[in-house]
Amino acid sequence: MFDVLRFIETKRDRRKHDKGDIEAFVTDALTGQVREYHVAAWLMAVYLNGMEEDELLSFTSALAESGKRVSFPKGLNCIDKHSTGGVGDKTSMVLVPLVASCGVPVAKLSGRGLGFTGGTVDKLESIPGFRVDMSLADFSDQVERIGCAIAGHSHDLAPAEALFYELRDVTSTVQSVPLICSSIVSKKIAGGASGFVFDVKYGSGALMESIQDAEVLAKSLVDVSDKLGFPSSALITSMEQPLGRWVGNSMEVFESMEVLRGGGPEDTVDLCLDLAGEMIFQGGRSDSPDSGRAMARNALDSGAGLRKFADLVKEQGGTEEVISHPERYLKHGPMVHEVKAEMPGFIHSVDTKSVGEAVRRIGGGRMNREDQVDPGAAIEIMAGIGDSVTVGQPLMRLYCNDRSLADSGVPYVTEAFSIREELPEVPKLVQERIGR
Amino acid sequence: MFDVLRFIETKRDRRKHDKGDIEAFVTDALTGQVREYHVAAWLMAVYLNGMEEDELLSFTSALAESGKRVSFPKGLNCIDKHSTGGVGDKTSMVLVPLVASCGVPVAKLSGRGLGFTGGTVDKLESIPGFRVDMSLADFSDQVERIGCAIAGHSHDLAPAEALFYELRDVTSTVQSVPLICSSIVSKKIAGGASGFVFDVKYGSGALMESIQDAEVLAKSLVDVSDKLGFPSSALITSMEQPLGRWVGNSMEVFESMEVLRGGGPEDTVDLCLDLAGEMIFQGGRSDSPDSGRAMARNALDSGAGLRKFADLVKEQGGTEEVISHPERYLKHGPMVHEVKAEMPGFIHSVDTKSVGEAVRRIGGGRMNREDQVDPGAAIEIMAGIGDSVTVGQPLMRLYCNDRSLADSGVPYVTEAFSIREELPEVPKLVQERIGR
Repeated sequence: MFDVLRFIETKRDRRKHDKGDIEAFVTDALTGQVREYHVAAWLMAVYLNGMEEDELLSFTSALAESGKRVSFPKGLNCIDKHSTGGVGDKTSMVLVPLVASCGVPVAKLSGRGLGFTGGTVDKLESIPGFRVDMSLADFSDQVERIGCAIAGHSHDLAPAEALFYELRDVTSTVQSVPLICSSIVSKKIAGGASGFVFDVKYGSGALMESIQDAEVLAKSLVDVSDKLGFPSSALITSMEQPLGRWVGNSMEVFESMEVLRGGGPEDTVDLCLDLAGEMIFQGGRSDSPDSGRAMARNALDSGAGLRKFADLVKEQGGTEEVISHPERYLKHGPMVHEVKAEMPGFIHSVDTKSVGEAVRRIGGGRMNREDQVDPGAAIEIMAGIGDSVTVGQPLMRLYCNDRSLADSGVPYVTEAFSIREELPEVPKLVQERIGR
Repeated sequence: MFDVLRFIETKRDRRKHDKGDIEAFVTDALTGQVREYHVAAWLMAVYLNGMEEDELLSFTSALAESGKRVSFPKGLNCIDKHSTGGVGDKTSMVLVPLVASCGVPVAKLSGRGLGFTGGTVDKLESIPGFRVDMSLADFSDQVERIGCAIAGHSHDLAPAEALFYELRDVTSTVQSVPLICSSIVSKKIAGGASGFVFDVKYGSGALMESIQDAEVLAKSLVDVSDKLGFPSSALITSMEQPLGRWVGNSMEVFESMEVLRGGGPEDTVDLCLDLAGEMIFQGGRSDSPDSGRAMARNALDSGAGLRKFADLVKEQGGTEEVISHPERYLKHGPMVHEVKAEMPGFIHSVDTKSVGEAVRRIGGGRMNREDQVDPGAAIEIMAGIGDSVTVGQPLMRLYCNDRSLADSGVPYVTEAFSIREELPEVPKLVQERIGR
């Protein structure tokens, strides 16, 4: 008989859980036999006392196996990619078709915006008709047919993960490496892919503020995935400033298509190519991340990536004309507010989280679960770290469909750019690679 | 606005709570605005990270003030006594009338049996007619009229304490000194007394197994009480073996009356006199615990204590004849099982907790909340630590009203006495005094 009080005591007293107890705990938490207060006390004990490696492996497996799992036909080895979330991070919309066009199937499960970070699902829904709700069977079928699919999270996959996630959120136990790692990896495993690439972000717009914390998490993600039989790698990337020129749902889709067309901002292109290289390598289509990157570069130049994106839009019900005339469908709102430099100098830092919060408040994200997002709410970033600016030079513009919303976002960003006389060090976008 | 997530983070990160936040947390926990999972996560954080002194004072006050408080007429300064619980601990039934007979009013709130420890309320209900349910006003009136009263806990007093206690019980956070201390002291404060005496037990039949842990708790109890304006002292006493000859409801009342009659087992008499001395001293009727002890000794010898007990029984509806003919009303069950020594030697230790569990299982306590207790279930302890025994000599007898119950208790006690060749050190009953 599983004894939940002894289980809590074990973690409380820094002793080790065995696999059977962890499985029973997760199962009983789902049935409700283990109550929310039990889970809450245990989460805090884990937050403070940590988990050993084999506990973490058992817990991750137990979460992954708590519901259904996407299955693909034998031989269809998909790669999934996960970013720990940021501001202006539109890489998924580029990577999924791009990597698929290089012959590596991509089965991507994505979320909606959360807090100050955007979500791929919200972004793609800016394309009229685009559907992210599909059955697990349709998801699998589509990957088999066209090599890629992007779907919203299903409650059928890893339901225990959702339960633990929600309780972490309300018990101040979110920022724990073993809890973050088990949550991410279990959801990826349930998604059915054979290998993963993690984009672990650090900086003022990331879950992990310091590069050291990001490193610890990245190592844990790769280690747990590898040990559970899912070869993986991670890039540690800077989120010290928003990625690309645009933050906001419609405009991020627009910018992704610019990248797929061979254009787009340099930082976004670079990060997409690096991640694509990793995915192609993990998918076994290249013998190194670098040669995978070169394949991806070719696919941008040849237009193969954009054609795959067109297939994806068509398959998932989106207006096909968005490819030929994106400006007709992907627009920012008409209201505009400009934030200008108040002193001359160099952009020293960007409070990226505040930029994310501003977009959220002008309608790009949700303040309440039931809120509708405004696809046209956007912020255009017009200067980056290291740029020299003069007094009155525009730093960013807020766009939306409602003036009062612009006002509610403005206070977040008037101070977001810090300007100094000295030239700052510009953070490298990709800091480190973790993995085989 | 009180932010419960920030509050949990504060304790999680070993920072200090301020008084206002602690009060809001306790208030909101009672209304349900702070949820059970919030409390559970916070309890584990306190268990692992502790509390500083001023946090502990604020938390104890907030619990004490969460409901009603017993009030006594001005000038009626009552003393309350609290024992951390043990096996065969019948001191309250002796102390309440004894100390009252020495001129110190005693307002005693008592509990029912909990786990392997007995409860004064269950014991007193062995006297036909005896009532422990009374209104707070009647409780106060009775103390004013006859100098003492013993009542069960009221839900109106310190309701937040009950809520936190119940959640500690189901989150493995019982054994935390600040949580134990705040729980005990807050309940005592709400009970309306002006000063407290604590009997903090250690050993195989106590909440605290080591004398060191008992010391830490005793110091905390006295310190918090004193600083909140309730002069107190504590004795650290051995619960390495059951107290007295009898364990079980009826027979413990019987034994208490033997003590009040000037007889009874030496250990029980000694402990009662020491505690009575403390209570009389705290009540301001003697200038030292020792002279208080001498007053109590006189009250036993003169029969004043027993007469006060008779008043108490009469006031609370009990059969008055129990005083003149206790053997008619206070009986052990007819079924008996004897545990005998299986080797010669000295009694080295007694697994006191198992003795408590055995009594509970033969009907003296509850396995489920709704169980009725059997007043006649009892264990007679026939040898103690340091006694020399021969093979076949009876060590204890189990009595009850149902043979199968005796069987269910026996496995707990066949191994309870350990016998060795060497003479052991006999633990001193009262190890230490803490307080002014």
